[in-house]
Amino acid sequence: MPREYRYQTLEKWLLKGLQEQRWPPGERLPSVRSLCQQQQVSKATVLHAYQRLEALGLIESRPKAGYFVLKPSTETCEPRTTGTMLPPRPVSLSDVFADIMGRSAAFDILPDLKAGEASPGISALNRCLGRALRSQKGDRSQYYDQPAGDPGLREQLALLYHRRGYQCEADNFCITSGCQNAMFLALMACCQKGDIVAVESPGFYGILQLLEQLELKVIEIPSSPATGMDIDALEAAIQQWSIRACVVTPAYATPSGSLMPDSARHKLLNLAENHDLAIIEDDIYADTGFVRQPDPLKALDQSNRVILCSSFSKSLSRDLRLGWIDGARWHARILRLKLVTQLASSRYLQQGVTEFIRDGGYRSHLKRQRLELRQNRDQLIQLIQQQWPLTLSRNTRISQPNGGLAVWLELDSDKDILTCYQRALEEGIIITPGSLFSVSGQHSHCLRLSFAHHWDNKRTQALKKLGQVLHHFA
Amino acid sequence: MPREYRYQTLEKWLLKGLQEQRWPPGERLPSVRSLCQQQQVSKATVLHAYQRLEALGLIESRPKAGYFVLKPSTETCEPRTTGTMLPPRPVSLSDVFADIMGRSAAFDILPDLKAGEASPGISALNRCLGRALRSQKGDRSQYYDQPAGDPGLREQLALLYHRRGYQCEADNFCITSGCQNAMFLALMACCQKGDIVAVESPGFYGILQLLEQLELKVIEIPSSPATGMDIDALEAAIQQWSIRACVVTPAYATPSGSLMPDSARHKLLNLAENHDLAIIEDDIYADTGFVRQPDPLKALDQSNRVILCSSFSKSLSRDLRLGWIDGARWHARILRLKLVTQLASSRYLQQGVTEFIRDGGYRSHLKRQRLELRQNRDQLIQLIQQQWPLTLSRNTRISQPNGGLAVWLELDSDKDILTCYQRALEEGIIITPGSLFSVSGQHSHCLRLSFAHHWDNKRTQALKKLGQVLHHFA
Repeated sequence: MPREYRYQTLEKWLLKGLQEQRWPPGERLPSVRSLCQQQQVSKATVLHAYQRLEALGLIESRPKAGYFVLKPSTETCEPRTTGTMLPPRPVSLSDVFADIMGRSAAFDILPDLKAGEASPGISALNRCLGRALRSQKGDRSQYYDQPAGDPGLREQLALLYHRRGYQCEADNFCITSGCQNAMFLALMACCQKGDIVAVESPGFYGILQLLEQLELKVIEIPSSPATGMDIDALEAAIQQWSIRACVVTPAYATPSGSLMPDSARHKLLNLAENHDLAIIEDDIYADTGFVRQPDPLKALDQSNRVILCSSFSKSLSRDLRLGWIDGARWHARILRLKLVTQLASSRYLQQGVTEFIRDGGYRSHLKRQRLELRQNRDQLIQLIQQQWPLTLSRNTRISQPNGGLAVWLELDSDKDILTCYQRALEEGIIITPGSLFSVSGQHSHCLRLSFAHHWDNKRTQALKKLGQVLHHFA
Repeated sequence: MPREYRYQTLEKWLLKGLQEQRWPPGERLPSVRSLCQQQQVSKATVLHAYQRLEALGLIESRPKAGYFVLKPSTETCEPRTTGTMLPPRPVSLSDVFADIMGRSAAFDILPDLKAGEASPGISALNRCLGRALRSQKGDRSQYYDQPAGDPGLREQLALLYHRRGYQCEADNFCITSGCQNAMFLALMACCQKGDIVAVESPGFYGILQLLEQLELKVIEIPSSPATGMDIDALEAAIQQWSIRACVVTPAYATPSGSLMPDSARHKLLNLAENHDLAIIEDDIYADTGFVRQPDPLKALDQSNRVILCSSFSKSLSRDLRLGWIDGARWHARILRLKLVTQLASSRYLQQGVTEFIRDGGYRSHLKRQRLELRQNRDQLIQLIQQQWPLTLSRNTRISQPNGGLAVWLELDSDKDILTCYQRALEEGIIITPGSLFSVSGQHSHCLRLSFAHHWDNKRTQALKKLGQVLHHFA
């Protein structure tokens, strides 16, 4: 038996070539056929090696054109930020979160603009919704949908997950009013008031707020932009405190953009198994992945303790308000909670989305959107580097995520971004300060900047202005 | 000063005439002009008297045709059922509720039929929704709506309530995923696990299930089909136990169909004031009122402690999933809870409904629907009386509500309707047994029967069959 498989040998050879710039950024790689001949390997071996390099974010396939070397983004340093672990505590956060949401400004520094064109994907989605509306038979509007949601949509969700390594059935899912709603149901199902829940630090503010309202205690586990939650730190926390559940975003966590490696995933699941933890997986960013959609953690779940939560809000539309939950061993309780907290979801809406997925509209939309998001990300990083000469220092670090909607910016440690919130607001600019992503005042020198929208002239100017505000007042 | 106003004299004279059948059922009453001349009173006096008789459900106005004597429904006895008061207890109910909801069968004995025509109102609504979908500007789908919901819709809600005596503002409201969702938010905002909540008995099973999931204790207050919750009984309960909140449906409560009189409303609010109770008002059936839409209890709320909950699910469409809540003194907490449990509602959906209301579509729809519902109610009562000769006895009583979607049927006290659930299911018939409307096994000889749908041939046959099932197996 060979020490390594042929695809591994080939992958190493290709990697070396990429590092030596044998094929410069933007250039086409050798065709599959020519590599087969040249390296004396099968087509499957070449495809396997190329797909692995694509998963690493080094190359990309373009339909009918072959594989191309990806341009490295402008030079950046990955942020070092990982939160500090402090004893579990109740959550109490500022009103900045409510203010940001009240201004519809979670992912745009200039929310008053709302000026972009609707993408072709959204137009196609809206046509499907319109069709579903018109084709409702008889007086169906006088019946509640079943509590679990439309079987057709759940079937499509199962198919989408099959492609990501999770072999599930339509009946695994319950349709919710978005991912936040799914996570609310998950926490209600597996926690009691006062329980301790582990989260990433920096971690999603929506979850922190939810924990506050449900009167759960939180322990912040340091999380790095490179590999996500530090599982060793989680283990240390488990030794010390009685932790009931762990909320984690393995794929492109916000704000850090981290992707959790396989080794950490296995370790996390082992820990959960040994200490009877419920794992709540926030999978909402997976479909935004620029070069691949990582498998969900749930795919590795042997003991039915990973609750999978997601929605279409980041990948498609924030106005659909459609999410889903795979409740694992808590499925029956979650179904009951969905039923008593909102009875049902809108049937025609689900049927419209189902058609959109079936027609291939969702797939095309994601393909288009990924390219746009990557471009927006690169532009954002470039703009920051060009326009913020006074704000940036040798200590400044910018994440460079391969998915999600935001970069994480780490400024000098004596900066306090929250103090600039009001100042920026006076310029019509809304920021999401780093301290929102912690319950203990950590990350106050950090900032999440979204690239969900196109960097048109107005947003570019706003970004420049923001650099000045940060320089003068942070 | 006269002992009574002129409209009162006229009203009495008209009432006497109606009792003596001077104008038989179905016949047109004297025109306003002729009454003015004949009785030597002003037009305003005649209109006032007629409107009061209309509010009593004795006559109805038909546009451009005048006032008509309403046919009395077939003779029925109002059910005597009022629940018994037992000490507060945790809630634990059968799976029948989940089964009924899983079959989309809350308001149809033959849910598999779903064969009726969409009403003109629903078609008009769908056109508005389609228009709202198409007219979404730019990339608005990439922004969350503000947590309170669309200001335009909230403005329309305020206007609708102005007509019902409640002077409120758009900012009083928060848009929710239906009325059940609103009541969930209300209970989360004003209760803690273990608190005691007073409800009507018989009372809405959705609320009982919600109390169970939130681990609240319930005390069932006897409630009559004529006047709703017995406020004296509530007072007795308050003397004995520490009650935190009271959930009440002043307008056409399900299942009894009761309308709470003004005197009881004032008494309830006084009690709430004196004992610091939160009142959660379920207003969902008010717009179905056949002859009038009663003012909400909230209109009398002097101390900002009535939380008003409602939705379009009973008056318009169960598939919209749009409700609202006026959170009174708990408004800020409710807004935060809405935000963290589901972030936002769908903006285009709200805008479509707003247009529908603005265009007058909602008003026309209600007008049409009320006539249909009254007709359906009368048919149902007639069918029961004709087709269930063996099931009915001298003890049988049928409610005759002037709003809502169901009648409440009281059979012989030794009958147990729940035992027939499975039997009826085998015939494709879904029933809502009386015991669902209590947490302590009360009302087991009762049954809620809905008239939300047209009594076509198949439903009529199903009803006949149901009579046989009840006779043989209850």
